[in-house]
Amino acid sequence: MGVVIPLEESKNKQASVKPLVDLTKGDMERVNQLILSKAGSDVQMIPEVANHLISSGGKRLRPMLTLASAAMFGYEGEGHIKLATSVEFMHTATLLHDDVVDESDLRRGKSTARTIWGNQASVLVGDFLLGQAFKMMVEVGSMEALDVLATAASVIAEGEVLQLSVAKNMETTEDDYLSVIRAKTAALFAAAAEVGPIIAATDKATRSALRSYGMNLGLAFQLVDDALDYGGKAADLGKNVGDDFREGKITLPVILSYRRGTTEERAFWRQAIENGESTEENLEKALALITKYNGLKDTIARAKHYGTIASDALAPLPDSAYKSALLEVIDFCIDRVN
Amino acid sequence: MGVVIPLEESKNKQASVKPLVDLTKGDMERVNQLILSKAGSDVQMIPEVANHLISSGGKRLRPMLTLASAAMFGYEGEGHIKLATSVEFMHTATLLHDDVVDESDLRRGKSTARTIWGNQASVLVGDFLLGQAFKMMVEVGSMEALDVLATAASVIAEGEVLQLSVAKNMETTEDDYLSVIRAKTAALFAAAAEVGPIIAATDKATRSALRSYGMNLGLAFQLVDDALDYGGKAADLGKNVGDDFREGKITLPVILSYRRGTTEERAFWRQAIENGESTEENLEKALALITKYNGLKDTIARAKHYGTIASDALAPLPDSAYKSALLEVIDFCIDRVN
Repeated sequence: MGVVIPLEESKNKQASVKPLVDLTKGDMERVNQLILSKAGSDVQMIPEVANHLISSGGKRLRPMLTLASAAMFGYEGEGHIKLATSVEFMHTATLLHDDVVDESDLRRGKSTARTIWGNQASVLVGDFLLGQAFKMMVEVGSMEALDVLATAASVIAEGEVLQLSVAKNMETTEDDYLSVIRAKTAALFAAAAEVGPIIAATDKATRSALRSYGMNLGLAFQLVDDALDYGGKAADLGKNVGDDFREGKITLPVILSYRRGTTEERAFWRQAIENGESTEENLEKALALITKYNGLKDTIARAKHYGTIASDALAPLPDSAYKSALLEVIDFCIDRVN
Repeated sequence: MGVVIPLEESKNKQASVKPLVDLTKGDMERVNQLILSKAGSDVQMIPEVANHLISSGGKRLRPMLTLASAAMFGYEGEGHIKLATSVEFMHTATLLHDDVVDESDLRRGKSTARTIWGNQASVLVGDFLLGQAFKMMVEVGSMEALDVLATAASVIAEGEVLQLSVAKNMETTEDDYLSVIRAKTAALFAAAAEVGPIIAATDKATRSALRSYGMNLGLAFQLVDDALDYGGKAADLGKNVGDDFREGKITLPVILSYRRGTTEERAFWRQAIENGESTEENLEKALALITKYNGLKDTIARAKHYGTIASDALAPLPDSAYKSALLEVIDFCIDRVN
């Protein structure tokens, strides 16, 4: 089950995150060491919970953005390792709190920390990781980097609250949805990419370019994520189709299909999402409506729109292996099959 | 119901927080303004949840410590207002997360945010306030103050996790208990008192003195709080006797009574606390055992011990109205009836 998106063009080469992974390999090993060390505590439950999530195999895209965006401007200090680790901890803390907020039982195919250690541990270990993140940022000593990341922390939380208040509300507009994903996802991508040029002491235009790249990459990333939840190319790759539907999450494929539907179809969506009637039969019907109204295809089109903005943000910068790798990540996020 | 502690000496004058309140009155008005403004957000739920807790009438002891500890060293900038507000936000965030962790329904006699807006909002608004706290700290621009407060944030979360892992375990020692209250309560008092001399650019000895004052005041404060839960002088003043008992919290009155008890009495405590048999009848019996073994009297004696350390920490500093007010707060915390 799941909608398959017809690809408009067939590319010769699948875009990959590999060039970015290769360029940041040495630094990422140090980040991984620092992650393990800073998630350590005499309080045994803390490394247990933290490592459960940390070792569960995310792509670590965010810390790689920080490492690359520092190295591409010739940064030679140690600060990018700590800032990249801080960024990953902020992300991990958000995931821990999200699982409590969403009452999720599974993440990346594994039981969530809350189902193993309880909501309490998830809330508190998230707080601990956030505290450790701020300590590392302070050690780096850049007030500007601190400001960018502290602002992101506020904005992320604000976005999550906004998401709560639009939950299960079918009148959510595309703009409301964009405000949510801008805050809860794109803000951290933007901060992760901006702190590199900050500690590399570049000019303001370069900082803004990297920030804009991160922000728009983050929007594209989340849009594709929300499309993949209803199928896309990843339908056969282990992600459960329809999780967002079952949780009553309002994402763009749903918003588009709802707004483009007939009165009867809109009544169906309200019943399914607002009244929580998310049966498998209703999921089938939802998928049919999403296909009928190009819900996934147009969500991917939006993602490409933001991908283009991200790409143009980097355009004025001199060519380099880092720039190429960052540009390829945009296509990777949009084309990705996992 | 509740144990009444016989006072050893009758003082002519009840120690009061009033001198500290009076000295910081003008600045506290600005802190209260900043609290309202920084708890604001376009996301309506955020100010609702935040103001529910902020307006519920805590004493605001922590921000007053920051204001006084800056002003007593002649600080003339604006930073102490922001740092004091940050300290109060860190405290409020902790309370919001605590209520989720403890599944509490009442705080200071009012419904907790989680019972009104749900666990989700409590977790996320706590995160938002923490983010706002860090943003304000960054605005103040003192790396040392940031370091002290970021470290406190980590330590507080670590202490809360430690508390989880000793919960309902009657073999908890007094040292374990002290580690918990040092981290979850005293660390923020210490940080609140230390950032004042930091931004006032005093010497290191003065910073250490204020930090030690705050740390030991915090320990005394929490010890008395834990005594008051079983009665003390506040038994008739609206606090419910036995809340900690019903939640199976291991506090010093219980630890002392358990360790000093007979084999049969220890079996009773294990049944009541570890098996959760916290009936009113068992509470009566617990109170009788606490009285029998001087559980409250000796908890207060411990508090006085830390109070003396706090007092001696300030002793080398020149006399001033601020110093007198801070010293009187120690006695207030120990003698307090609310």
